[in-house]
Amino acid sequence: MKTHFSDLKPSPRILLGPGPSNVHPRVLRAMATPLVGHLDPEFLVIMDETKDLLRYVFQTENELTIPVSGTGSAGMEASLCNIIEPGDKVAVVVKGVFGERMCDVAGRCGAQVKRIEVEWGRVVEPDQVKAALKDGDVRVVALVHAETSTGVLQPLEEVSQVVHEHGAFLLVDTVTSLGGHPVKVDEWGIDICYSGSQKCLSCPPGLAPITFNDKAAEAMRNRKSKVQSWYLDMTMVEKYWGQERAYHHTAPITMNYALREALLLIYEEGLETRFERHRLNHQALLAGLQAMGLEPFAQAGHRLWTLNAVRVPEGVEDAKVRRRLLDEFSIEIGGGLGPLKGRIWRIGLMGYSSSKRNVLLFLGALETVLRQEGYQLEAGAGVAAATDVYS
Amino acid sequence: MKTHFSDLKPSPRILLGPGPSNVHPRVLRAMATPLVGHLDPEFLVIMDETKDLLRYVFQTENELTIPVSGTGSAGMEASLCNIIEPGDKVAVVVKGVFGERMCDVAGRCGAQVKRIEVEWGRVVEPDQVKAALKDGDVRVVALVHAETSTGVLQPLEEVSQVVHEHGAFLLVDTVTSLGGHPVKVDEWGIDICYSGSQKCLSCPPGLAPITFNDKAAEAMRNRKSKVQSWYLDMTMVEKYWGQERAYHHTAPITMNYALREALLLIYEEGLETRFERHRLNHQALLAGLQAMGLEPFAQAGHRLWTLNAVRVPEGVEDAKVRRRLLDEFSIEIGGGLGPLKGRIWRIGLMGYSSSKRNVLLFLGALETVLRQEGYQLEAGAGVAAATDVYS
Repeated sequence: MKTHFSDLKPSPRILLGPGPSNVHPRVLRAMATPLVGHLDPEFLVIMDETKDLLRYVFQTENELTIPVSGTGSAGMEASLCNIIEPGDKVAVVVKGVFGERMCDVAGRCGAQVKRIEVEWGRVVEPDQVKAALKDGDVRVVALVHAETSTGVLQPLEEVSQVVHEHGAFLLVDTVTSLGGHPVKVDEWGIDICYSGSQKCLSCPPGLAPITFNDKAAEAMRNRKSKVQSWYLDMTMVEKYWGQERAYHHTAPITMNYALREALLLIYEEGLETRFERHRLNHQALLAGLQAMGLEPFAQAGHRLWTLNAVRVPEGVEDAKVRRRLLDEFSIEIGGGLGPLKGRIWRIGLMGYSSSKRNVLLFLGALETVLRQEGYQLEAGAGVAAATDVYS
Repeated sequence: MKTHFSDLKPSPRILLGPGPSNVHPRVLRAMATPLVGHLDPEFLVIMDETKDLLRYVFQTENELTIPVSGTGSAGMEASLCNIIEPGDKVAVVVKGVFGERMCDVAGRCGAQVKRIEVEWGRVVEPDQVKAALKDGDVRVVALVHAETSTGVLQPLEEVSQVVHEHGAFLLVDTVTSLGGHPVKVDEWGIDICYSGSQKCLSCPPGLAPITFNDKAAEAMRNRKSKVQSWYLDMTMVEKYWGQERAYHHTAPITMNYALREALLLIYEEGLETRFERHRLNHQALLAGLQAMGLEPFAQAGHRLWTLNAVRVPEGVEDAKVRRRLLDEFSIEIGGGLGPLKGRIWRIGLMGYSSSKRNVLLFLGALETVLRQEGYQLEAGAGVAAATDVYS
């Protein structure tokens, strides 16, 4: 094995990929706070405050609103494995990597998975969902609000109506939207909703906020079979986060400190102000990219503010450009996943990373690299278009 | 909801419970380090170093040695769900809460669970394991090395021999021993071993180090059924931690910074020195407690250095004493779990918490509280006995 280990001194990255996003200094400071025990009366107050603040960002009154002790994918698994019993029919909208992942997870929970296929880069139409539900008997409809692999924002209100007319539960992934786009759990009738800490909440990765409405929580409590995951069994976890304070597993104390601070920053900024910031920076970035000749990948009218997917221009080497941005500017952006590998860039503007200064810097950096790589563009066009939006 | 949230300023606790333990300032500082992405070349170096350092503490050459992105219980579930296929016979030694938990988890994985019952506070004898295996056909034998609920250290070498003579896998929980007691994965022939970050490694809770030997890893790769947990599926996770670097889920970056720093502190101290420190402080604490008239709960000769279980003296109110230690001295110790609730105290001396100064302070604090609660003891006897050990 290696015998010499240097000090921990990573480069100061500007994180404009699909997550994690940059973390506010107050959140970093919270992470350095000495620990208390997971049953300490002082930690119980922090837990209650975190639940309150999570309800604020999810725009819900749901009692069962907590952070799962794992990353966003653990939130996905917790959502699915608690509501699904073996043999249940589950319809999953597949329009990117994360819908695909939901199928895999639901299948492992013993569900009969019915796929609702949509071209990557597009939203699902309510009629497609209706058609998939017409045989009846579907227990859960699962879909992704903000598809991180394509940059598409899925409207939910009409889909929710269709799902509930058919008596199914609506389960929504808001990993890349919560804290950046409105997520109105109660108003939109979402029964189960989860997210991740490291995207628009701008907390380090490691926790997955989740919320279940009373109908979903009741269904879980009345299950015939045990939840197949002990670690993610919400009927036990809720006893620790509820009045009983019954020990289940040791909560990740420090991560919870960080999440509370990140949520507090959102509360202080205010949801509407925060959404407007995300919208404006997205608009400026996209104007800049388009002025440089780059084309957005996602369907017009349904583009995420938080993750901007654009096609890699002809003749430009995807990986090389990303590597130069990292090496020369310490800026991270994402490449494409699965069938989109090498074909798109994914530029995140999430939470603390969504700022005017990041937009302008990134456009300048990308221009520099692209010109050196021989891509023809009008010098300064990107930044000019962005400042037009800001002016 | 609450509308005013104060600054995060928890009391500076001395953590002498069953975990989390106190965290070294260098680890806290690592937690405050700005993030890089989970596929950043600099993070890949940190991952490799973490794997090297984990192999050092597990005393193994196993390639598949990584931190699971969850707490110790996620490590338990990852160990069991990756090796068990539905219908497999799994023998679990039950001699405390965590053996009981293993039965629950294994059952949820579809195992036929065979319980090997041992009185709480005692170790399992190799003959008991042999008797349980005589019908043959048991695929996995699972047991806890350091039972956090009783304070018992389980010898493993003879048990390992018996298990392997019967062709089964040996799966061991070292949550409360790794980094405090020797855990010789290779020498003892442990096939699958997991731990938690927040005990003797003195890192905040949130990661579960795990190691699989080649035989176990090969068995996992040749499974007939998918691992029921997507999140904990090691056949996928190992591709991210291995040479392929394939994205699976977003690693908890900051927790990994912290774990690397905590492991580095162990590497710098040296395992033997560290074990000796844990042994000595345990001996001093126990001498002190016994001089105060408190009786150890665990079987003589098999007491943990890292977690000292003692009976609550007659006439003393368990919860009140613990609450006074917390309120007046900011010291946390643990109460009993399950059938031991109200009957024992669990005093942890783990990792950074295992120090002479904590032992002396704790004995003084406990004496103060017990005398005020009307418990008769010779003033200063506890501290005197401990200093005898140190002298």
